[in-house]
Amino acid sequence: MADASNSDNGGEKQTLKIRRLEITDKRKGYMELLGQLTVTGSVTDDEFDQRFEEISSRGDDHLICVIEDESSGRIAATGSVMIEKKFLRSCGKVGHIEDVVVDTEFRGKHLGKQVVEFLSDHCRDMGCYKVILDCSVEKKVFYEKCGLVNKGIQMSKYF
Amino acid sequence: MADASNSDNGGEKQTLKIRRLEITDKRKGYMELLGQLTVTGSVTDDEFDQRFEEISSRGDDHLICVIEDESSGRIAATGSVMIEKKFLRSCGKVGHIEDVVVDTEFRGKHLGKQVVEFLSDHCRDMGCYKVILDCSVEKKVFYEKCGLVNKGIQMSKYF
Repeated sequence: MADASNSDNGGEKQTLKIRRLEITDKRKGYMELLGQLTVTGSVTDDEFDQRFEEISSRGDDHLICVIEDESSGRIAATGSVMIEKKFLRSCGKVGHIEDVVVDTEFRGKHLGKQVVEFLSDHCRDMGCYKVILDCSVEKKVFYEKCGLVNKGIQMSKYF
Repeated sequence: MADASNSDNGGEKQTLKIRRLEITDKRKGYMELLGQLTVTGSVTDDEFDQRFEEISSRGDDHLICVIEDESSGRIAATGSVMIEKKFLRSCGKVGHIEDVVVDTEFRGKHLGKQVVEFLSDHCRDMGCYKVILDCSVEKKVFYEKCGLVNKGIQMSKYF
């Protein structure tokens, strides 16, 4: 756990801590935060716990981080990274960053950059030779500020 | 195992079979084929076997497929897919397609399309709500023929 940011917000002190997702974070608005990114659908507590365990079982190979505002007990930002093991690049590894989102009420505090740097540092520590992510063209400048460069396009197929 | 293609190549019949990567495929030119995509570096037999076991231990969540030309015992094409488990979209899953390559000597036989369809079908069978991949702008038309559409851009950071 590390200090993500401390700011005086109209007399109310915000203490923002960046850390791994915990199973109790569903109660702290984690799913509602994901809902600011895309469709979350309905997820029961049991379904959440089961998925949490599935992801946790992968240890450092699938990490979800959150920034908690400890003064309000709310999750302010999140992002995840999944590490892919390859044969190429001398059996190299690549980090795939996904689902980066900052709560609208916490924007302008550079929390997104902290999330991306936390995930990126994790990948470097894990021996990845690169980290990649997909985003809309509008997010390009933000990710450039995080040290990433545009390398290609994303293609997708929905079932 | 399924017939990928049968063609009469100057009197010599090619029997192309699509299947999962096997540990013995290193001897059939699998690494040399990856070398047509990017840097492979040096990988010993022990390193290959260890990485093969790491990937295989993930079962259906990380699948590498190959097309073998059984008449020559050479790997003619390959591609991989890694399944990401999410909380969003009702604890949905996404397939990440990576490292699709067809041997220069086997191009023009639609093997790349067969690889992408094999991996995409696997993701649908596994309950993924979408499959995604990154590529260069030059490959956009090829992937559109495979049923994918451009959705955004890829950003990357090399360590």
